[in-house]
Order: sequence, then C-alpha cells, then structure tokens
Amino acid sequence: MSKNSRALLLVAHGSRRTDSNDEIRELTARLREQASDRFASITCGFLELASPSIPDGIQECIDRGAQEVIVLPYFLSAGRHVVADIPELVAVKQQQYPDLSIKISGYLGSAEGIPNLLLSLVE
Amino acid sequence: MSKNSRALLLVAHGSRRTDSNDEIRELTARLREQASDRFASITCGFLELASPSIPDGIQECIDRGAQEVIVLPYFLSAGRHVVADIPELVAVKQQQYPDLSIKISGYLGSAEGIPNLLLSLVE
Repeated sequence: MSKNSRALLLVAHGSRRTDSNDEIRELTARLREQASDRFASITCGFLELASPSIPDGIQECIDRGAQEVIVLPYFLSAGRHVVADIPELVAVKQQQYPDLSIKISGYLGSAEGIPNLLLSLVE
Repeated sequence: MSKNSRALLLVAHGSRRTDSNDEIRELTARLREQASDRFASITCGFLELASPSIPDGIQECIDRGAQEVIVLPYFLSAGRHVVADIPELVAVKQQQYPDLSIKISGYLGSAEGIPNLLLSLVE
C-alpha cells in the first residue's frame, strides 16, 4: 500500500471541555509534522461529544481517496470503548466499503514504550 | 535526595472494571522492573473506584520512609482531575507533612514522546 493511499485517523473519547478536544487536534497536528511522509492524511475523530465522529472521520479519509484507513485509539485501557464501541463503528464502515481496508491499531495504553515515557516525566 | 528516600506513585482514574485497574497494577510492576534503581518504591493509587486511594497511596510511601513522593498522573488530558482533584488531594497531604516533599510530575498526555509512541503502534 503506497503512502498516497494510506490514511491515519487518531480517535479519542471526546470531552465537554473544548480544551481537551483541542489537545487532541494539536496532537494530531504534531503527528502530521512527524509522519506526513508516511500517510496521505493524518486526522482525528471522536467517539462522542466532539466532531468529527469516528464514522465521519473515516468517511473523510475515504472521500480523500484513501484505500487503507488505520484507526488509532487514543485510549489508556482496553475498556468497552476500545473492545466494543470502536470496533463496531469500524465494522459498519468496512461493510459499507468492502474493497477498502479499515484497520484498528493497538491502543495507546498497549504501547511497549509507556513505562519509558512515564519515567521521562519524572527525570 | 537519595534514591532510598524517593517514592514514585503512579495515579490513575480507577474503573469499575477490575481488568482496567489490574492493567494499572501491571504497568506499575513494569515501572518497578525498569526503575527500581531510581526509587525506593514504585506503587500506584486511584482517584476513585479502586484502592488504594491517592491519599492512602501517599501515606503508604511515607510510612515506608519516603522523604520525597512523586505523584505521576496517568491521564491523557489536563482536565479537572489533573488540574484540580489530584492537586487538592496532594495539598492536603503536604500540609499534613510539611517537612516532606510531595510533588506532582507532568501527566502522561503532556509527555513529549507521545507522537512517537503513537506512531510506533502503526508501524
């Protein structure tokens, strides 16, 4: 799959606090700075309370021509949102576009580097 | 401050799901594996729904002889819990033990390495 057809969608819970949602948008901009050579687009979506929704976020990627969408859950634990809600939303989109690949990557809390990152905060 | 008097307390929100709380306890064990040379103790506490509470977690550190306790918030955004709730709990303990140092480090979401860690999940 070439860079030009691969989209990255960071998905967060969403908050009533605008600042929290803006933190996600800023993080998305930082991802874009670091990895725009690897993805045709890097955007974000929210499970609730903010927009775009996850289905709308995936749709935007598809509308821009993505053949592959990687959904990256910005969640700390494998709770209901990670285990059920996000996969269900993705499955609906995948059924709607059977010729495209819509995959969910590991969630943030599952990353091997978490302990090192935490320790970097206390040095 | 020598290693022998410095305690690290990872604080998480806490969940009704036992598995989520156990994820935190497992993460704490991994931190302990990686940094036991730097801290006299590495333990965890929860804001709600699980134990020990944050005050009890701090107290345990003090009871074990810590002169300095570093509270590390395992939170993604600078919401009310990070900005108000945790600092208030820490302030009460600090007043109770004015001769000790009880500090709060940056929260997980503020770590510089977050974008790289996220990208490591999609490679």
